[in-house]
Amino acid sequence: MTTIAGNDAPWIKLHNAEFRSRMLVGIEQYTNPQEIAEVLRAAGADVFITTCDPDRGTSSVLLTDLADHLNLWDYIWIGTTSFARSEQAALRTAAQLQDSWGISVLKLDVRDESNVPDVAATISAAEKLLAEGWEVLPLIPPDVRTAISLQDAGVSALRLMANRVGSGHGIVDVRPFRAVVEAVEVPVVVESGIGSAKHVVQAMELGVDAVLVNAAILHAQNRTAMAAALKAACDAGRASFLAGLMPGDDGRPPSGTR
Amino acid sequence: MTTIAGNDAPWIKLHNAEFRSRMLVGIEQYTNPQEIAEVLRAAGADVFITTCDPDRGTSSVLLTDLADHLNLWDYIWIGTTSFARSEQAALRTAAQLQDSWGISVLKLDVRDESNVPDVAATISAAEKLLAEGWEVLPLIPPDVRTAISLQDAGVSALRLMANRVGSGHGIVDVRPFRAVVEAVEVPVVVESGIGSAKHVVQAMELGVDAVLVNAAILHAQNRTAMAAALKAACDAGRASFLAGLMPGDDGRPPSGTR
Repeated sequence: MTTIAGNDAPWIKLHNAEFRSRMLVGIEQYTNPQEIAEVLRAAGADVFITTCDPDRGTSSVLLTDLADHLNLWDYIWIGTTSFARSEQAALRTAAQLQDSWGISVLKLDVRDESNVPDVAATISAAEKLLAEGWEVLPLIPPDVRTAISLQDAGVSALRLMANRVGSGHGIVDVRPFRAVVEAVEVPVVVESGIGSAKHVVQAMELGVDAVLVNAAILHAQNRTAMAAALKAACDAGRASFLAGLMPGDDGRPPSGTR
Repeated sequence: MTTIAGNDAPWIKLHNAEFRSRMLVGIEQYTNPQEIAEVLRAAGADVFITTCDPDRGTSSVLLTDLADHLNLWDYIWIGTTSFARSEQAALRTAAQLQDSWGISVLKLDVRDESNVPDVAATISAAEKLLAEGWEVLPLIPPDVRTAISLQDAGVSALRLMANRVGSGHGIVDVRPFRAVVEAVEVPVVVESGIGSAKHVVQAMELGVDAVLVNAAILHAQNRTAMAAALKAACDAGRASFLAGLMPGDDGRPPSGTR
């Protein structure tokens, strides 16, 4: 495979960590520690996303089992509240993640019972967490007003929903994503509904900084092979953006300027 | 960049050549020999597509100039009739390519004055060329009946139009492409209108065997960088297809079976 230089500079710098890989992998639905290790390696991930279910009091995989397959300290640990179904549940999850493992970087999801992000609750939770000193990366729809509110509140990055969680349908209308990329200074991640390498490349060619993939790997026939394919797609999409795309029909920028 | 094995087996075997690279690059609009050499190298191309304009009697680049920058014998030479605007012009171009350089593999385009493929003229030209012993790779719309007619006539591969030549708009409706891939045994190439790495990956994830790119590189700000990005995208799309995509909304197959 062609080697493309220039993908290894950090795309985000937090107070205690730099993320270099532009592909993040959600692993909170896996139950096999060896498979988690293989998928993270194949994806070239440098971030390990952990969580606990605040209402069950457990995480899906025991860290002692994981440590048999993976050097956990090779990864930047961040927490996620993807199982939370209310602002209070998200805040409880965060507190538990910090108490248990000293985590201070949070992939903040506040979704309702239908698994749809609750924007008002997300903003409210983000403000409380920021006041406590967390680095917050909230999941929101591709909406400029919400994006700017959260940037002004002090979040570290914005995570934009491509489509319904788990749908695998990718971005349908790229324009609101371009609008957010152009409106904010903080890094932008695209996730949710990424179903294929095409969707990964589409997002990266819009000039976003990273993608987070979950279902596309989880539901592939060969998860490790798909993780490697999507990592390659992510890098190719970034390289295409930087090479300066020809004018297109889908809101792509004329140049690789971000 | 992640290395993905298995992309180097030939995807087409003709009587005198095997194509291994799944990315083909149209270079007939370039005028700078050094740039042709750099783009072909960056794209990992193993096929060199040459032509002459039957009505002007010239090719766009002198081979003596090219040979200063490229070992021409490292490439599989094939001809194209992309400048022909009638069946007769296509047949004259083919004869001239064979007489001048002994070329016997033809990327057959028969487009009308509006640059739209003429299916009836393409089938007629293909039959005449096949009777003369040519290996023929015709450009057609993604139409199952036309595809099967040409397969039955004995063409070596089918080249399906993604979109209007030079448009950069990519495939809009994947279903007819999937239908052709499922209906024929010969290799299938997607080309025309490929404008981005996303379009390259989209085609490869449908299970086609290769893509041919021209305008996306020609109109990029950095042609060599774009050639490398699209090659990486091509390999990533193939790898994603082989890894077995999750069921999607766009006619993707449930498994990497082709």
